[in-house]
Amino acid sequence: MASNWDSTRPGETEVTLPEAQDAWLRFIGRIETPFETRDDCPRRGDFDGPECRVILDATWAPALQGIERRDRLEIYYWLNQARRDLLTQTPRGQQPRGTFDLRSPVRPNPIGMSVVKLLRCEGNVLVVLGLDCLNGTPLIDIKPRLCHQDG
Amino acid sequence: MASNWDSTRPGETEVTLPEAQDAWLRFIGRIETPFETRDDCPRRGDFDGPECRVILDATWAPALQGIERRDRLEIYYWLNQARRDLLTQTPRGQQPRGTFDLRSPVRPNPIGMSVVKLLRCEGNVLVVLGLDCLNGTPLIDIKPRLCHQDG
Repeated sequence: MASNWDSTRPGETEVTLPEAQDAWLRFIGRIETPFETRDDCPRRGDFDGPECRVILDATWAPALQGIERRDRLEIYYWLNQARRDLLTQTPRGQQPRGTFDLRSPVRPNPIGMSVVKLLRCEGNVLVVLGLDCLNGTPLIDIKPRLCHQDG
Repeated sequence: MASNWDSTRPGETEVTLPEAQDAWLRFIGRIETPFETRDDCPRRGDFDGPECRVILDATWAPALQGIERRDRLEIYYWLNQARRDLLTQTPRGQQPRGTFDLRSPVRPNPIGMSVVKLLRCEGNVLVVLGLDCLNGTPLIDIKPRLCHQDG
């Protein structure tokens, strides 16, 4: 039976907000994963997990120039099914904690970021390991991961 | 003399785009740094650099619950002065490269992300080391940094 991801649990705090309208995002592609429901998604990506495909819109393909030599990338995506109005959240079996003390998809701006291992480039498609998001998740950015960032 | 950050250099490729309108961001605060111009900003943040202040709007203060015990955080911000239409870019003294092979602020969705060291919390203000953005940069998210991410 599917979980009810959008219910409010004990200890969680909602906030009433005006419509978000400070800046627009542009989706630049989508991510193909084997995870078709939120219950299918692992808690986090794993380099031992399945191959996933980051499919960039053709417009942006020239912006991949040089990326094939990279080993690690940061993939940014938009968690378009997540609610955005919780101040505190109660992870299963835990005490309530502040939204910014969690990496939950539920946050004021539901941006997901995963460090992935790049296996290969196939035109405008990157085949990677380490993603945990739903199939069809909108892509918003790709950046090289530099070793000094692991500080 | 200030640089002209918005000019197009040899080897750079522009793209003509429809208006971005796929998802709205909500700014949740702002970042105070000593960097008043783009020429002042370091190429990347440094834990030996100046203390900076991440100022969360009061609405979101309850969402910091528990964060004071963290050592490393990810700070996400919106690089609102960056152009968004370059497919390839020519860093100073280098050959042209694809936008996604660079961590330049110029990208289709100019989201900055820095890993910072949390020094202390003062109400809705986080005092941190490791930021490189302009004073006044809009804040969009805060996440705890977990050690498994440095893979």
